[in-house]
Amino acid sequence: MSARKIIIDTDPGQDDAVAILLALASPEEIEVLGITAVAGNVPLALTARNARIVCELAGRPDIKVYAGCDRPLGRKLVTAEHVHGKTGLNGPVLPDPVMPLQDAHAVDFIIDTVRAQDSGAVTLCPLGPLTNIAMAFEKAPDIIDRLAGIVLMGGAYFQVGNITPAAEFNIYVDPQAADIVFRSGTDITVMPLDVTHKALVTAPRNDAFRALGNRVGAAVADMTDFFERFDKEKYGSAGAPLHDPCVTAYLIRPELFSGRRINVEIETRSELTMGMTVADWWRVTDRPANALFIGDVDADGFFDLLTERLARL
Amino acid sequence: MSARKIIIDTDPGQDDAVAILLALASPEEIEVLGITAVAGNVPLALTARNARIVCELAGRPDIKVYAGCDRPLGRKLVTAEHVHGKTGLNGPVLPDPVMPLQDAHAVDFIIDTVRAQDSGAVTLCPLGPLTNIAMAFEKAPDIIDRLAGIVLMGGAYFQVGNITPAAEFNIYVDPQAADIVFRSGTDITVMPLDVTHKALVTAPRNDAFRALGNRVGAAVADMTDFFERFDKEKYGSAGAPLHDPCVTAYLIRPELFSGRRINVEIETRSELTMGMTVADWWRVTDRPANALFIGDVDADGFFDLLTERLARL
Amino acid sequence: MSARKIIIDTDPGQDDAVAILLALASPEEIEVLGITAVAGNVPLALTARNARIVCELAGRPDIKVYAGCDRPLGRKLVTAEHVHGKTGLNGPVLPDPVMPLQDAHAVDFIIDTVRAQDSGAVTLCPLGPLTNIAMAFEKAPDIIDRLAGIVLMGGAYFQVGNITPAAEFNIYVDPQAADIVFRSGTDITVMPLDVTHKALVTAPRNDAFRALGNRVGAAVADMTDFFERFDKEKYGSAGAPLHDPCVTAYLIRPELFSGRRINVEIETRSELTMGMTVADWWRVTDRPANALFIGDVDADGFFDLLTERLARL
Amino acid sequence: MSARKIIIDTDPGQDDAVAILLALASPEEIEVLGITAVAGNVPLALTARNARIVCELAGRPDIKVYAGCDRPLGRKLVTAEHVHGKTGLNGPVLPDPVMPLQDAHAVDFIIDTVRAQDSGAVTLCPLGPLTNIAMAFEKAPDIIDRLAGIVLMGGAYFQVGNITPAAEFNIYVDPQAADIVFRSGTDITVMPLDVTHKALVTAPRNDAFRALGNRVGAAVADMTDFFERFDKEKYGSAGAPLHDPCVTAYLIRPELFSGRRINVEIETRSELTMGMTVADWWRVTDRPANALFIGDVDADGFFDLLTERLARL
Repeated sequence: MSARKIIIDTDPGQDDAVAILLALASPEEIEVLGITAVAGNVPLALTARNARIVCELAGRPDIKVYAGCDRPLGRKLVTAEHVHGKTGLNGPVLPDPVMPLQDAHAVDFIIDTVRAQDSGAVTLCPLGPLTNIAMAFEKAPDIIDRLAGIVLMGGAYFQVGNITPAAEFNIYVDPQAADIVFRSGTDITVMPLDVTHKALVTAPRNDAFRALGNRVGAAVADMTDFFERFDKEKYGSAGAPLHDPCVTAYLIRPELFSGRRINVEIETRSELTMGMTVADWWRVTDRPANALFIGDVDADGFFDLLTERLARL
Repeated sequence: MSARKIIIDTDPGQDDAVAILLALASPEEIEVLGITAVAGNVPLALTARNARIVCELAGRPDIKVYAGCDRPLGRKLVTAEHVHGKTGLNGPVLPDPVMPLQDAHAVDFIIDTVRAQDSGAVTLCPLGPLTNIAMAFEKAPDIIDRLAGIVLMGGAYFQVGNITPAAEFNIYVDPQAADIVFRSGTDITVMPLDVTHKALVTAPRNDAFRALGNRVGAAVADMTDFFERFDKEKYGSAGAPLHDPCVTAYLIRPELFSGRRINVEIETRSELTMGMTVADWWRVTDRPANALFIGDVDADGFFDLLTERLARL
Repeated sequence: MSARKIIIDTDPGQDDAVAILLALASPEEIEVLGITAVAGNVPLALTARNARIVCELAGRPDIKVYAGCDRPLGRKLVTAEHVHGKTGLNGPVLPDPVMPLQDAHAVDFIIDTVRAQDSGAVTLCPLGPLTNIAMAFEKAPDIIDRLAGIVLMGGAYFQVGNITPAAEFNIYVDPQAADIVFRSGTDITVMPLDVTHKALVTAPRNDAFRALGNRVGAAVADMTDFFERFDKEKYGSAGAPLHDPCVTAYLIRPELFSGRRINVEIETRSELTMGMTVADWWRVTDRPANALFIGDVDADGFFDLLTERLARL
Repeated sequence: MSARKIIIDTDPGQDDAVAILLALASPEEIEVLGITAVAGNVPLALTARNARIVCELAGRPDIKVYAGCDRPLGRKLVTAEHVHGKTGLNGPVLPDPVMPLQDAHAVDFIIDTVRAQDSGAVTLCPLGPLTNIAMAFEKAPDIIDRLAGIVLMGGAYFQVGNITPAAEFNIYVDPQAADIVFRSGTDITVMPLDVTHKALVTAPRNDAFRALGNRVGAAVADMTDFFERFDKEKYGSAGAPLHDPCVTAYLIRPELFSGRRINVEIETRSELTMGMTVADWWRVTDRPANALFIGDVDADGFFDLLTERLARL
């Protein structure tokens, strides 16, 4: 089987970085057609910069990186420097990127690429707010049916809320965009906090990253050291959840994950619950399924995969 | 220490029945000043009838039972015959009640009783929608500060939603009433689905009820047999959650329970998430704490207490 | 034809006062069974006091006045001292009331009276927020079908908003109560700002009140002098709108008014438009008519009636 | 003074057609840089076609016409064939357009044009839902500050609602887009129903169009004959309101119009009032002014202008 063609839409973010590294380390399973940056964890100028830093860290300055939307649809941008640090990639010391940012707008790159590839060939992998994706769907609805689908990190159900008591950060930042995407009809696989909080980088796991002995392993370990302090303090967890790498790990080894094909709607009306992913996990409504909502992961298998692949870079 | 004076506001419901039985079986810790019925699991005529059936089952036809509101504040009544059966007490065969329904309205009984008792003497124990309580607070706000507090069953956080993906039944039926109660400023202890789903009547536990050899034990076992089929089918759980008895058990042995003092707000604006108890468990907001939100229970201790007390009736 | 039996529910307010005076001056057409006070223009303690001041001004200390709810359903009380002055009756110097406030709660008086009178005999005349009425409907739904109907002052359509850009004061203060009342199914006649702003007390009209030569005429003229400054400044209108007297004038001479039988729903979900009376004046929806929404008044006829009747007191 | 450079964003619609004709007939005051079509009165394929039909009717096949978004942001498209007929231009018989639709997307044409022209040179004139404009602002926020401003037809205040009791069609179709535009900070002039319903094509006025003796006059008269039946039936008005031509007339002779510089917010939360333009006409809030909301027009002057200019084509 040939590699799956993907576009990574991202707001790095340490965990975004690891997700990208995992994808770039897995050319047999994943072909990265391009990376599009969006405002989220930090402002767009930083996410567009961080995406290129990560490509260069992976030794892939040839990857094309595009800047997209600098704000959500109709709301002020909320960022998460309290989690990711001021640059979004705090932790390791990494050089400024040399590779250029592409001229085209991320939204146009997504549209043009999906149109240029065979129908059913491209999978979108959003790791941040869904602004770029929703804009592409709105500007060029014809691409929706041409997608292989979407695998995204976002939302929460049992493990409700990290930015508000009801909402996960990525969806909260741009609920309107999320609503457009979840109603689009394309095949969606969701990695919510429910699963990502089962993929914690415990101390031994981070030691394993560091023990790889390569530049990437050290950088990932440094990122995790920085990143984990938030979750340890907030949730008393045993380590940092590696949210976004679940997306790329799923593309490589879907059998590590399990979930339910259910209805997921996005709260866009009430400020109190704004951006909640209302997931009908128990099927208490008649709403038709529109997403595969992942609930569990083989965490050891996930970290084995991650360690093995990061060693390659 | 003298017994705690309570008013049970209820919509029986098999689990309401067990909560009432536990209270009536525990005169050293609990003095039931009266029972008020509200529409909820089944319509008011049935809940007012069922409350009296349960009092007679407990051998306490002297308990005063009052009918209250037959509909929520500004919404159509939603009932739960799919869980509790047509009468609300399906399962055992129990005789029609002989004891009379009191003439006064439940709302007035609550107001008059709280005013007649010493300030700080009365605890309200709502086991259903909060309509009667909110009406009493609205009609006579002076009683709010005279309460010892409220211990209620309702809501959900991690274990989100049994009537919709976001809401628990009692709060969903009358979100406006819940909003009035949660904003009232009185001391509130909440038994959400999160804890009640940890108090499952497994087969051995139900056998223990039946083995009590008395009429109450047999009736409770029959109720549970009926009641559990819903949760087993819906959630694949190992038995029926005894939601409401958590309230009366907490009055007797609070040390069996643990939780967090946090902010809880009620969603009243959006139909999608209507009635959600937005609980700031992780304290991601600055909202002041207004409730003790229970998250865990010593289930064995809880069932030991229940079995021991039901044996007395 | 015998006099129409009414209960006036009110938050005086200068224009409430005139509405009450008009009713008490018209015993052939109107029998005032009692007056119930509610929080609104000013807090409950003042509205309950003002209602009695007005009865005594009318020479009717025998009228029974009851205090009701001191706050809306689930919202903080908003008052309108910026319009009505600190006491709510600013303008004339009027003595403290001697007549007592009744012991019973306004909500119970409404319920007991409607039940005691023949079915179809009683008309409710709310001149303030609908809290008391909604509470009575919620506590005793059987009274809804026993009413002759409701004639109320509240809402706005073309003449949108006096407290917010979208909402009229009475409905804005307690939208939940208004929603309960408008959905109740009883016959409702609405006097919105659209019509009350066509009943302006111009200088010649106020002179006519003062020229009556009695105590009531002088008091009404003084009230209007105080009251009108707000509307003159805010809307540049030619005088004070006499909102509430439209209600009692309608009971006496309905032919002075014209309107449309249409659907009216209350906005309760969005803060921006909270309390708006969404009136389907142009019948652009299929929603069934639930109210007679008055749009026009013969202002000269209205003031002739008012002057003639106030002369009697 | 040189001609004002504008982009007309439109969903023709008979009144859109007249607005375009007026612009094209007024080269001394208006330079049309291009026309962008959006879904609204009828689907995009028809509006993109109708825009070209109108250009050819005006003898201007050189005008560049671009297709934009075929659906609003996150809502299903609502159309208005009940007003405009099946094609959107029902009434006259007009030939299929020969001139081509441009390849570029309307959103990109707007962005590229505003960037290519001097800062402060371009005025956007939206005559339909604001989808294209909001998308351009979201994709390229830098253009917002480069605009001379926006003059748009949409909304209503006193003359509330033509598609729902609370909302005007253009804003209702895409409230999210309207919200983005009204919050953008650019200078906005609004022609709401309040003013457009004062610009009615009475029989003598339509006779004057027909009497022009040219093709355009006959076509406009035929359009109006078709278009007016809706308003006559619905509102009992004396003729069709020429909504959209108010926008282009304002560019030519602003002194014909008067209004207030006030705050206007868009309702996006509640279905009942969705898309309402909540205009603080009476300045009852502290919200800062963000729009010039037009309330009145010199209707005779407006029709004189229109007749004079249409005669030129």
